[in-house]
Amino acid sequence: MRVGIIGLGIMGAPMARNLLRAGHPLTVHTRTRARAAGLLADGAAWADSPAALAAAVDAVVTMLPDTPAVEAVMAGPDGVLAGARAELLAIDMSTIDPAAARALAERAAAAGVALLDAPVSGGEQGAIAIMVGGAAAAFDRAGPLFAALGKRVTYMGGPGQGQMTKLVNQVVGAGTLAAVAEGVLLAAGAGLDPAAVVEAVGGGAAASWMLAEHAPRMQRRDFAPGFMVRLQQKDLRLALASAERLGVPLPLTAVVQLLFTAVEARGGGELGTQAILTALEALAKRSG
Amino acid sequence: MRVGIIGLGIMGAPMARNLLRAGHPLTVHTRTRARAAGLLADGAAWADSPAALAAAVDAVVTMLPDTPAVEAVMAGPDGVLAGARAELLAIDMSTIDPAAARALAERAAAAGVALLDAPVSGGEQGAIAIMVGGAAAAFDRAGPLFAALGKRVTYMGGPGQGQMTKLVNQVVGAGTLAAVAEGVLLAAGAGLDPAAVVEAVGGGAAASWMLAEHAPRMQRRDFAPGFMVRLQQKDLRLALASAERLGVPLPLTAVVQLLFTAVEARGGGELGTQAILTALEALAKRSG
Repeated sequence: MRVGIIGLGIMGAPMARNLLRAGHPLTVHTRTRARAAGLLADGAAWADSPAALAAAVDAVVTMLPDTPAVEAVMAGPDGVLAGARAELLAIDMSTIDPAAARALAERAAAAGVALLDAPVSGGEQGAIAIMVGGAAAAFDRAGPLFAALGKRVTYMGGPGQGQMTKLVNQVVGAGTLAAVAEGVLLAAGAGLDPAAVVEAVGGGAAASWMLAEHAPRMQRRDFAPGFMVRLQQKDLRLALASAERLGVPLPLTAVVQLLFTAVEARGGGELGTQAILTALEALAKRSG
Repeated sequence: MRVGIIGLGIMGAPMARNLLRAGHPLTVHTRTRARAAGLLADGAAWADSPAALAAAVDAVVTMLPDTPAVEAVMAGPDGVLAGARAELLAIDMSTIDPAAARALAERAAAAGVALLDAPVSGGEQGAIAIMVGGAAAAFDRAGPLFAALGKRVTYMGGPGQGQMTKLVNQVVGAGTLAAVAEGVLLAAGAGLDPAAVVEAVGGGAAASWMLAEHAPRMQRRDFAPGFMVRLQQKDLRLALASAERLGVPLPLTAVVQLLFTAVEARGGGELGTQAILTALEALAKRSG
């Protein structure tokens, strides 16, 4: 399958690499062409616009930072829909507002394009889970691409349901990370050995991916991203907005969002999400 | 090693069974003798008091509901210390206040008894992690018993540090569970397929033991314990008290504790901790 990918950031670049490796003829487009240099050297083709890219391939994958970016790339003047043949398969793997994803899927369908929302979880290190919303037939067509891109691929229902699942994922993940941060801070206050705490707590009912991955980073004060606080905040804002629309109360998520806001207020928006620890520490800090 | 066990509740009874199975001559004592019937039929001996039990064995294991119960059984008039020979090994596997555990270890040492605090995590289903505080030499002597009782055994430092680790564990575990509950509620509000949500979210960065074990229970409204809300509350009160003593802020844990209080206020103290979902649901409920 001829594939195009738009967006070669922290997530998009390795995905493009995986598609090449799986043997798909690949065309790329991204705002900053320099980012594509390595892929072009390895055989990928360049397209000057999303529309030009869409005209040259059977399937388009987008991996972009936010809802406005996806709307512009898909439905803008030179966007994917402007260049698309009927039967084009479009897969948006960005994390965006589920309502916007539903609206885009309708506009795509009107242009004869099957659009799947297929956000991912797992970050750039290790295995990636893909949560897919959209028409079941399009999901089946996308099977070979998903196989090259993720370890666990789950079909979640109609348009927008992949994005809703991603927001559920972010609510659970961010809350789990915050719980880990409180545990790390309490353990440090009590003078417990950091590695022994992770070993002991990781052996029972409190075990999680966040504990195993991020507690050691917090303990050695390694706040490099991983997944940036400001992107996490974007996702939590989407989750809180969707929850409010649905009448679902998320008190913990509201506290977590507040803590990340404190990290951002202290200039930490580009840090990894494990820097939520520093917001808790700031609460404890006394003057004098 | 001749072992005695005091407390044959939801955790103590299977531990007694494991000690018998490992070939240790076993003496038991518990408030309600009827609870010991099965063990006595299988070869365990009965002791009429903690003191009498302590006099008959090399090591005493206690598994009791709270700090006052442990203080009474260890240091009360007919307690373990009243009957103990010097060199007795005492292992308290209850979850109690770390400061109380330190004080008891001092009183025990004065009577020639080595007391370890060794609370557990993992619940009655599946593998158990043991977190141990106390003298390193006593920890070494207890090795064969721990091997029969738990899957992962971690030495955490001096007296009370096992209990501190358990409180860290409860902070992380309860926060993770609450995050899972918010995710389950958001997913239900969005009409997502329950099993697909657990599969998708469980494949990425939001994966946890709590998600795998308790999300399905929440989804089918199975609120049977497992681990009871009122015991979880006891542990979170201890954690918040220790945290305040240490100057460590735990805002999420405070919210989680509040949600569990709401479950208790609605008569759910004996439900499993996954019933925290019902406190979130109550927030969403409208009159009329």
